Amino acid sequence: MKATVFHAAGDVRVETVPDPVIVDPGDAIVRVTHACICGSDLWFYRGDAKWKPGSRTGHEFMGIVADVGRDVKKLKKGDRVFAPFAFSDGTCEFCRKNVQTSCLHGGYWGGADNDGGQGEAVRSPFADATLVRIPDGAAGDERLLTAILPLTDVLGTGHHAALSAGVAPGKTVAVIGDGAVGLCGVLAAKRLGAERIIIFGRHAERLDVARRFGATDIVQARGDEAIARALELTNGGPEAVLECVGNEASMAMASGMARPGGTIGFVGIPYGAQQGLNLGRMFGENIALRGGVAPVRAYADELLADVLAGRLDASPVFDLTVDLDGVPGGYAAMDGRAAIKVMVRP
Amino acid sequence: MKATVFHAAGDVRVETVPDPVIVDPGDAIVRVTHACICGSDLWFYRGDAKWKPGSRTGHEFMGIVADVGRDVKKLKKGDRVFAPFAFSDGTCEFCRKNVQTSCLHGGYWGGADNDGGQGEAVRSPFADATLVRIPDGAAGDERLLTAILPLTDVLGTGHHAALSAGVAPGKTVAVIGDGAVGLCGVLAAKRLGAERIIIFGRHAERLDVARRFGATDIVQARGDEAIARALELTNGGPEAVLECVGNEASMAMASGMARPGGTIGFVGIPYGAQQGLNLGRMFGENIALRGGVAPVRAYADELLADVLAGRLDASPVFDLTVDLDGVPGGYAAMDGRAAIKVMVRP
Repeated sequence: MKATVFHAAGDVRVETVPDPVIVDPGDAIVRVTHACICGSDLWFYRGDAKWKPGSRTGHEFMGIVADVGRDVKKLKKGDRVFAPFAFSDGTCEFCRKNVQTSCLHGGYWGGADNDGGQGEAVRSPFADATLVRIPDGAAGDERLLTAILPLTDVLGTGHHAALSAGVAPGKTVAVIGDGAVGLCGVLAAKRLGAERIIIFGRHAERLDVARRFGATDIVQARGDEAIARALELTNGGPEAVLECVGNEASMAMASGMARPGGTIGFVGIPYGAQQGLNLGRMFGENIALRGGVAPVRAYADELLADVLAGRLDASPVFDLTVDLDGVPGGYAAMDGRAAIKVMVRP
Repeated sequence: MKATVFHAAGDVRVETVPDPVIVDPGDAIVRVTHACICGSDLWFYRGDAKWKPGSRTGHEFMGIVADVGRDVKKLKKGDRVFAPFAFSDGTCEFCRKNVQTSCLHGGYWGGADNDGGQGEAVRSPFADATLVRIPDGAAGDERLLTAILPLTDVLGTGHHAALSAGVAPGKTVAVIGDGAVGLCGVLAAKRLGAERIIIFGRHAERLDVARRFGATDIVQARGDEAIARALELTNGGPEAVLECVGNEASMAMASGMARPGGTIGFVGIPYGAQQGLNLGRMFGENIALRGGVAPVRAYADELLADVLAGRLDASPVFDLTVDLDGVPGGYAAMDGRAAIKVMVRP
């Protein structure tokens, strides 16, 4: 089959790789119908994360079950499913605690050991626990399928940021970052009843999406100026801050603006974020830091129900669609900020 | 009156300073009967915190009301009180949210602007909101008074660490640090129902106190060895970690051992702690960081009730008592770890 392979910073290629086959009796093979390129893929694409050449790419996909192992009970050939960006056994302590990303036997798509989502097919371990079935009625409803696709990562991740930050009805919320996760953070905060949602970003077309998703205020300033604006707009800081970038500047903003007693929900993979953390202020003002890699499997059923009911739709984050051969160009477009998020149709 | 004054690293002196007088109508003057030297006082004593020469010292005291301003309603001359280490107005948003340490008009004892606890008397702003009345029956009961004294800081701080870390019945808890706050963290965790309490420290006599306070396991290793021991003892890490030191090594231990999905409650004033924070692991395993400077006023009534009922007694942390002239020697004893915590009887 064809799949995307990382070679070096700025160099991903679509190549022929072995077709996936059932290895363990709990496996399923999924033929990928939709995948994505993630903002977090840019970490290796830019060389910030050190990936081995030959690694497979892509951790967001949905598709149709092509084969199942003999222990798979809940899925059958022909079922339409989406995959959270981590696979998990569904039975260990951490799966039971809804921290499936810490599953004792789980892992992430792509890399050296697993198929990536940016390819024609994927072998999924623990298929019953990992894959989420999409009702048959969704078949052919491309609009609905595109609204389901963000459940593989960015919408669940935005929701995790909002939950971790303690967003609840009436709260004042700041969202740092106008990438797909930040935009989904806005949507999740709105869904959870936030009264005021201030997004901090720089790109007009992304901030337009933020406004559609429920942002009440837009701040294009950065650094200390952004902190000052946040304190001024909220009379002392937002109670919940969603840190959706992961670098030094974004963490400095988050920890510099959160209201005393407030919480930062962090979901941006930290690259240099530690240097930005204002731990002295967090200590002095009892500001908490919660979150991490999102256990999107934990939220899949709840969020899918809202998507199916037409109450939740993050699909406006997709502003470019490519086929598999277009994946390298999709990376370049996201790297150059010509696209918010790329959908892949293998 | 006499009070202790900071001059330079390693140099505190008992000097004659102006007698405190009522300035604002909400003030009270407290004649100090008991005070303490705090582990956190060592930050300026050692020169790690840059204090101005002439600053007054001590933030833990109790005593007898000697005078009140005309707006003070709840206290009268002769009442016995203890003071949380921060004063607070009791009415602002943050006081109402029980983050009195972030009070919009509050502050800390000592320094350039306020009387310190290590002296003969203190002017307390917002006396009604700040000072906690001790029932008359405690008069003359030196043993009880000594059990109340830790409510000014270390017992409330240990409780804050435990609450922030999510200690609850049945939880597995690690306490990092065998200073008075760490020991009080053990006591607080026990009180909140922790099933297993592992303390990490180095000093045999302190660890004996920890055992009396409820520690079930004692680990004298440090660094990676301590982390390995914690993971082994708990089969994957303690769910709640109380970080009661505040330096790079202690924060590295805390963030290196917490169980996936667990929480670090941090109450050690951070000096270098940021460098130790394993933010990558915290992100990957969804480990939260909560806490900060303890709003001990929030816990005063609840904990005092238990102390008065004989159910809670942190007084074993005091292993040296000095008079006011003995305060400089008390600092030296704590600095040299010859004492866990010093009580001052002016």
